[in-house]
Amino acid sequence: MPSIGAVSPHKLHFAEPLPLASGAALAGYDLVYETYGTLNAARSNAVLVCHALNAGAHVAGLDANGQPGWWDNLVGPGKPLDTNRFFVIGVNNPGSCFGSTGPMHRNPATGRAWGADFPVVTVEDWVDAQARLVQRLGIEQLAAVIGGSLGGMQALAWTMRHPGRVRHCIAVATAPSLSAQNIAFNEVARRAIITDPDFHGGHYYAHGVVPRRGLRVARMVGHITYLSDDSMEAKFGRELKAGPDGPLSYTTQDIEFQIESYLRHQGDKFSEYFDANTYLLITRALDYFDPARAHGGDLAAAFAPARGKHFVLVSFTTDWRFAPARSRELVKALVDNAAAVSYAEIDAPHGHDAFLLDDPRYHGVLRASFERIFHELGTL
Amino acid sequence: MPSIGAVSPHKLHFAEPLPLASGAALAGYDLVYETYGTLNAARSNAVLVCHALNAGAHVAGLDANGQPGWWDNLVGPGKPLDTNRFFVIGVNNPGSCFGSTGPMHRNPATGRAWGADFPVVTVEDWVDAQARLVQRLGIEQLAAVIGGSLGGMQALAWTMRHPGRVRHCIAVATAPSLSAQNIAFNEVARRAIITDPDFHGGHYYAHGVVPRRGLRVARMVGHITYLSDDSMEAKFGRELKAGPDGPLSYTTQDIEFQIESYLRHQGDKFSEYFDANTYLLITRALDYFDPARAHGGDLAAAFAPARGKHFVLVSFTTDWRFAPARSRELVKALVDNAAAVSYAEIDAPHGHDAFLLDDPRYHGVLRASFERIFHELGTL
Repeated sequence: MPSIGAVSPHKLHFAEPLPLASGAALAGYDLVYETYGTLNAARSNAVLVCHALNAGAHVAGLDANGQPGWWDNLVGPGKPLDTNRFFVIGVNNPGSCFGSTGPMHRNPATGRAWGADFPVVTVEDWVDAQARLVQRLGIEQLAAVIGGSLGGMQALAWTMRHPGRVRHCIAVATAPSLSAQNIAFNEVARRAIITDPDFHGGHYYAHGVVPRRGLRVARMVGHITYLSDDSMEAKFGRELKAGPDGPLSYTTQDIEFQIESYLRHQGDKFSEYFDANTYLLITRALDYFDPARAHGGDLAAAFAPARGKHFVLVSFTTDWRFAPARSRELVKALVDNAAAVSYAEIDAPHGHDAFLLDDPRYHGVLRASFERIFHELGTL
Repeated sequence: MPSIGAVSPHKLHFAEPLPLASGAALAGYDLVYETYGTLNAARSNAVLVCHALNAGAHVAGLDANGQPGWWDNLVGPGKPLDTNRFFVIGVNNPGSCFGSTGPMHRNPATGRAWGADFPVVTVEDWVDAQARLVQRLGIEQLAAVIGGSLGGMQALAWTMRHPGRVRHCIAVATAPSLSAQNIAFNEVARRAIITDPDFHGGHYYAHGVVPRRGLRVARMVGHITYLSDDSMEAKFGRELKAGPDGPLSYTTQDIEFQIESYLRHQGDKFSEYFDANTYLLITRALDYFDPARAHGGDLAAAFAPARGKHFVLVSFTTDWRFAPARSRELVKALVDNAAAVSYAEIDAPHGHDAFLLDDPRYHGVLRASFERIFHELGTL
């Protein structure tokens, strides 16, 4: 399947402060974005891609380092989200650490890095920032918004917050809110970071250090929740670092099992590039997402603005982070609003991470959805 | 239900070194134990209770601080394990931090605390130490050995290692080995401890500090795996610390949700009394338990010494740490050896922690099992 080839990011400055759910506002900020494909004359073929925790604007194609985008298997010429047909936008959310204004940047109020003073941002805040970008790009209405996991929450929030500006919503491996267990895992990760002596209350930039120990543990625990029990068992089982017939080392501090080696490697890699304050901000955005809250817990009432809109929801059977039952809650609330909902529950072994993989049934659902959206373009 | 009342621990010294699975040996060591009830004249009514991670010899009754034992709901006069009928022994395993020789005690080879030099101990090593204690108490054969979780592994190991010295095995909420996911969670906890700057490579005693940050995170992540998703949802859901209608604080570092408050409290409490080196040793004993390994992965072959013995296995439907499927693996291996196996899968909502609770169906199974064992005493 051909790739888009080399791509480069763009950056736009937004001078007008962004009002936030918390009551605070984010003063002038930059957004980094990428686009793929061509905006048609009617400006009707734009698709916005929302990112999850560990990703940014680089959705597809190859960046300056030759790295493919995080959803390159989905987005490109002839791919399910076909850039020969659609104008695709990837944008990095404020508070993240992949180019847009975040806690590592200069706080205009103090002249120093924001650090822990970066305002708490929510899924709805991000969607508002994205809506400004879309407007700046001259797009009145998106053909679709798509995202997986936390990105799926943003896709859903678009239909509640800016229903007139999006026609289709595709939300994969997501949930209407975090469960107590989801929040609990986030909190473990946050405590690991915050109690790392190198965190310095979130102002570690000034100390020239990074709370790497905390980031490693945070990533390790996160990673366990991204994989299914079965896929971890199939991939690692009880295999020893010393090989299948290797002797046991009887060690408490060193690596004995392959799964330990893998997790440590994931933690080490992550701690090299991910910002600790961003980790706190993004896990909190996850925790706070709960559109039903403003409606006394009535999710259907929250989705009232999405009435009559088109939704595609996908979940994966072995995803225990955002299990299919959570997607079914969404389907019910949408159907209660007479929305047009397609829901696919894919029997995939890979757990939550499946939303990033190219399972043919999953990609088949997305391909068919974008086919439909493309053909609708001619009827607008 | 009456309790045993006040109890006090005993301590015995064992001068003969204990050979360990690793090839090392534990030099002279102390074991702390408690007993409840009376050994009959035939010395045939002794039941050994094996503990899991966060417990010791104090199984039942009230200690000097008035604290009930960790399995007080099970063990006592008229209780399922009836101390009017049985002589019950609780023993703290070497390497633990509840009285028996552990890493905080003096290493005779150096004159300083063992710290990280305490030898790695396995489930089988513990069972060997327990067997010596039982012998010292003048008991040739136990009527039964019982344990839950890691304690269940010890109960199982007795039947393979000392089959002539135990008649019945009761193993609750346990597994024939840890899965990759189980090991992964243990490794996250260990990394949190080991990378805490106060760990000092395991020799923190000499520095007058405790790796409390790491212990807190370790306990938090452990605790999540002890509870079921459902029970956490029922108990905490998305309830705010500020109360059901309380305003959101929009904080990344402070507590917003009740589940966070609960987990932090669990972590804080645990870090006040649990030893970090013990945490490493005990999680490793869990990781290493794998009786099938010495038999090319054939669990039935591992249980060959248990041929004809009586087993009771119990699992809990919502236990995702040691799920019912793991107990069924054990049942199959035992049945293959013509062992007499009773297996109960209890539909309880509490996850792994259910083994410590007094669900009436669960306790009914144990009561009936000990009735049977008691009546068998008259036929010996």
